[in-house]
Amino acid sequence: MIAALDMASVFIFALTGALVASRAQLDIVGFLFVASLTAVGGGTLRDVLLNRDAVFWVADPAILWAAAIPAVLVFFTAHLLESRLTVLTWLDACALAVAVPAGVAVALSLGQPAGVILIMGVSTGCFGGLMRDVVCNEVPLVLKQGELYVTCAFAGAGAAIIALQFGLDEQLGLILCGLTTLALRAGSLAFGWRLPVYKARAPRR
Amino acid sequence: MIAALDMASVFIFALTGALVASRAQLDIVGFLFVASLTAVGGGTLRDVLLNRDAVFWVADPAILWAAAIPAVLVFFTAHLLESRLTVLTWLDACALAVAVPAGVAVALSLGQPAGVILIMGVSTGCFGGLMRDVVCNEVPLVLKQGELYVTCAFAGAGAAIIALQFGLDEQLGLILCGLTTLALRAGSLAFGWRLPVYKARAPRR
Amino acid sequence: MIAALDMASVFIFALTGALVASRAQLDIVGFLFVASLTAVGGGTLRDVLLNRDAVFWVADPAILWAAAIPAVLVFFTAHLLESRLTVLTWLDACALAVAVPAGVAVALSLGQPAGVILIMGVSTGCFGGLMRDVVCNEVPLVLKQGELYVTCAFAGAGAAIIALQFGLDEQLGLILCGLTTLALRAGSLAFGWRLPVYKARAPRR
Repeated sequence: MIAALDMASVFIFALTGALVASRAQLDIVGFLFVASLTAVGGGTLRDVLLNRDAVFWVADPAILWAAAIPAVLVFFTAHLLESRLTVLTWLDACALAVAVPAGVAVALSLGQPAGVILIMGVSTGCFGGLMRDVVCNEVPLVLKQGELYVTCAFAGAGAAIIALQFGLDEQLGLILCGLTTLALRAGSLAFGWRLPVYKARAPRR
Repeated sequence: MIAALDMASVFIFALTGALVASRAQLDIVGFLFVASLTAVGGGTLRDVLLNRDAVFWVADPAILWAAAIPAVLVFFTAHLLESRLTVLTWLDACALAVAVPAGVAVALSLGQPAGVILIMGVSTGCFGGLMRDVVCNEVPLVLKQGELYVTCAFAGAGAAIIALQFGLDEQLGLILCGLTTLALRAGSLAFGWRLPVYKARAPRR
Repeated sequence: MIAALDMASVFIFALTGALVASRAQLDIVGFLFVASLTAVGGGTLRDVLLNRDAVFWVADPAILWAAAIPAVLVFFTAHLLESRLTVLTWLDACALAVAVPAGVAVALSLGQPAGVILIMGVSTGCFGGLMRDVVCNEVPLVLKQGELYVTCAFAGAGAAIIALQFGLDEQLGLILCGLTTLALRAGSLAFGWRLPVYKARAPRR
């Protein structure tokens, strides 16, 4: 289950990384670089923070193909897309909805308490995309105003933790986690769902 | 002692993170995200670099409340502040003066040599704020011209190392470390203390 | 061999970090900070990702002098340079050509498979400079359009892997790795060698 979630999130995040590389008009190696960074960034952070024996893609290097193939694919086909930004945003939502349960699952398998599970879900989900956006100088999706992003990861991980404490099966809990994340993110993108933001009289003072 | 220093630096750095989040007009989850990143960033880097058995907040997840509570607090009260930037700057100075001894203390407890102690003091002190500023697109306090910042951390850690080599008690050494850091930073903020900067005929060539 | 490569890449990368600090007109501690970050950034990432017993400069803190001395040196002599940007770019090319084999060598010594060796070569080579440029707000050399950079690291690491599989001696393989990296990077700087970039009808859509 963990391996499947990691593989899927690597693949989809790599697609988003390659799309951002196309917006920056990089060459094929630039596509590979940004796609890999995005794809393994969140999971690598998770494994380092939890001090696992080996980072997931060092333990199983075959997973690197799941980052390389999408990069090449996008390099040769992205010009066929009507709006790369739309595709990018929605793929990123799917990647988030797979990566959050991947983070939760690893923390669960190590018997971590609720607070750590929550943080692993959020950071596995959010940091790959955050690194992608910081390196490529895009406005980080994580911090875009008027959209839910970290909130979706937070709610997804929280839903899983609560469900598991009520005795739900672990696999079902992870599916619930992914669906909650995806539903909130999709609702935010499609219908403008949001939380009230902090408003000051003089914002930057 | 280490636990108390970590807890205090997490709390104060979380306040600064939440104030930066208020300047970026984020929602409550954005406050939690930036506050947590700032609060545990430096100490997490320290623990990863020193390859400790577990990152401090994974070993003791209760510490995460010390990051979450200030975020909520600031979200609901920051509008009462006359100038958030001033409060932010001075709180950051206090956080630095607690985090540097926290880094020094951990390196000492692992029996590291002077060079490593110095770097742990500086990076525990400076990296939480640096991540906060990079992610939120503020000018990093670390690199602001005409202010001492890394220098204060450097001098604080250095003072502790020298004092300990002259046989000072470890607790007193850590207090000296914090006071040196705070005094220099406060002097720089209040009286404009600074070091001469590099001046070139043509800066950016 | 690994120690020599690490030491050399620390020294040269520290020179480039200090030159970037001079362009940002920092003070002497700022020079030390940026030089150290650049010098040990890539190797530290490599050691954390591979979960080595200790990060290389914690295992051997004497290496920190190789980061500090160039910082001081550049602080007092950079004004003698005709064009710091040119010197910076070429020194960075040399540092890259030493750091990539340093990454490859460590991955080899741990018996890692080809995919992991490749990534360690690329990340040891590229991440120190990337951190330097992100922190100092320069356009990352890694992503500069119309230049080969990651590609050189990629090709260098790849050349070593292929040569070793054909039975070449490990030391010769590392030298080949460095020369390939340097030749490609120099060719790109001097003669404008490049790969075709992705071109879209509407780049940012």
